[in-house]
Amino acid sequence: MTYRELLAKDSFWMKDTLDIPIVLSSRIRLARNIADNPFPHVMSHDDAEKIEAQISGVLDGFTAEGEKLVYIPLKMLIPVEKKVLIEKHLVSPGFNETEYARGLALSESHKIAVMVNEEDHLRIQVLMPGNSLREAWHLAGLVDDHLEAHLDIAYKEKLGYLTTCPTNVGTGLRVSVMVHLPALVLTNQVQQVLGALTSLGLAVRGLYGEGSRPFGNIFQISNQVTLGKSEEDTLTHLDAVTRQLMEREVQMREVIRKESPLIVEDKVWRARGTLENVRILETEEIYSLLSEDRLGIDMGILSRVSAGFVSVLINSMQGCLQYNLNKQLDAYHINAERANFVRGIYHHKMSENVN
Amino acid sequence: MTYRELLAKDSFWMKDTLDIPIVLSSRIRLARNIADNPFPHVMSHDDAEKIEAQISGVLDGFTAEGEKLVYIPLKMLIPVEKKVLIEKHLVSPGFNETEYARGLALSESHKIAVMVNEEDHLRIQVLMPGNSLREAWHLAGLVDDHLEAHLDIAYKEKLGYLTTCPTNVGTGLRVSVMVHLPALVLTNQVQQVLGALTSLGLAVRGLYGEGSRPFGNIFQISNQVTLGKSEEDTLTHLDAVTRQLMEREVQMREVIRKESPLIVEDKVWRARGTLENVRILETEEIYSLLSEDRLGIDMGILSRVSAGFVSVLINSMQGCLQYNLNKQLDAYHINAERANFVRGIYHHKMSENVN
Repeated sequence: MTYRELLAKDSFWMKDTLDIPIVLSSRIRLARNIADNPFPHVMSHDDAEKIEAQISGVLDGFTAEGEKLVYIPLKMLIPVEKKVLIEKHLVSPGFNETEYARGLALSESHKIAVMVNEEDHLRIQVLMPGNSLREAWHLAGLVDDHLEAHLDIAYKEKLGYLTTCPTNVGTGLRVSVMVHLPALVLTNQVQQVLGALTSLGLAVRGLYGEGSRPFGNIFQISNQVTLGKSEEDTLTHLDAVTRQLMEREVQMREVIRKESPLIVEDKVWRARGTLENVRILETEEIYSLLSEDRLGIDMGILSRVSAGFVSVLINSMQGCLQYNLNKQLDAYHINAERANFVRGIYHHKMSENVN
Repeated sequence: MTYRELLAKDSFWMKDTLDIPIVLSSRIRLARNIADNPFPHVMSHDDAEKIEAQISGVLDGFTAEGEKLVYIPLKMLIPVEKKVLIEKHLVSPGFNETEYARGLALSESHKIAVMVNEEDHLRIQVLMPGNSLREAWHLAGLVDDHLEAHLDIAYKEKLGYLTTCPTNVGTGLRVSVMVHLPALVLTNQVQQVLGALTSLGLAVRGLYGEGSRPFGNIFQISNQVTLGKSEEDTLTHLDAVTRQLMEREVQMREVIRKESPLIVEDKVWRARGTLENVRILETEEIYSLLSEDRLGIDMGILSRVSAGFVSVLINSMQGCLQYNLNKQLDAYHINAERANFVRGIYHHKMSENVN
């Protein structure tokens, strides 16, 4: 498989989970560093190259549960490819802004993505569709074990794993879920519900992490604390919160269905009508249209379409759109091609579900 | 034909004129009064009844070019029927607000509608689809001649016809056209173009005359002057202005087609998508959706639908909607039924034109 083929495919985590997909995806991230080496923010070009060489040697070709890693040095990639990696959540938005040796070990399905020389020497990420923190945790553990077996990972008895930013010291673990909460937004409950999470030590962010606005009723919920709390507790906590959020969202959908069915029907049918007919479509709008359309599908009002919510959303982003079309486009033509792309999807509704 | 059947049918003027229907309709109105009788604003109940009896006797059953008049006393009508008459432009909005004897002589196709005891004893109206001032003028003349032959119409050599309001003295003639100018609005030229008409002695109003806002890019243009200007000059003047407006609108459609085809395509396809899928629809919104859809049809972007622009617009009004459904509805259900009505139309696009 070429880089191009590898990057162009849909990430496994973008797959639709069909049974009330309120939890869109689950993510495990482990921060690790090589002992007795300067952290990335203070290392030299030579340090960076040395560490990259060392880590990539250990990662390239490693296979965990059939997921074989391929190491891709950042300098091999053209700008649009870097954009695709960000849009598919395989690297952090800031990953490209450097002259230092960096790279990514990516598995075929994109479930595993290990960034080298980002904020820490190693950022192990496992991303899965739906509510699957435990599975993701298991897979991340296999990668972590492999790295520990071949590298001298910085660790101190009393502190745990050492990391560049003190907020990651300890477990180095960030667990997060991406949730779609249109009914909580519609009923004006989302502020209150998500606000309460902050006091539980959880962070709430938009689709593209820190600083990104929560478009399309999509929110990322993650733990803040990595010190003095075990991995098991961190997982259990977020899992419990996620289940509560799901339950609340499902309840609110029932309330809407009973109390104002026509208002929600109007909203989702209008979204569907626009998705089927639009000729110019900006990023912000596609988020809300797809979110409303998805709510309509979930509530049994609209027929399914041939592609999933997250897949259409991510493939509508600037980078993915241009990469899939193999064309460089200005803003005007991006909005036109985005419209063409979604119209194509929405004109091929799944026949067995059309009502 | 019963009153119900007569009122429920589409007025002839609501018919679509297929070849670039920028001029939606043409209207002639003549104000007349019976000599030696008090004008309506100062007459007694007895005066009103006497005059109604006199006029209705002359009008009921009169036929001009196959258009047979039926006299309908206002008191015979229930509120929703009065609303239908207003919405179809067959009586003025203020016509129902009285205890005095009033009525309407209406022809089968609604081309001719003569109000009795409105602001003047007689308001002869002829309404036709498209740009047809001359035809309307001819038909109004036949009704006027018939009235003059059987009634003593108030007329003074130097002044002309006497009317309640001094602004109608002279010819008592108001000629008007209803024009659809979406391209002039889109290109921000409409203020300038229509502003210039005022200085030519013409008035610009919305769909429902004096005081009504110009929703849906529809404007009514009419003469202001009735004194010292012949009927022929009045007609010729408005006809010339109407042709200029049409030309300007057609030019602007060409400019849009050349300079920003995708922007107009997006606009009209979105309108079509909404009309096909909407579940709740308010009055203001249907104006703009139908206007955009109509522009799309005119420009060959959208396929035709089974019913015309004006017909769908008028039949979406509160009164017509309830009358056609034979149901009394609250505001919420009116918006739902309006949505059902347009969806019904837009799901039956004319097959020969679907592209």
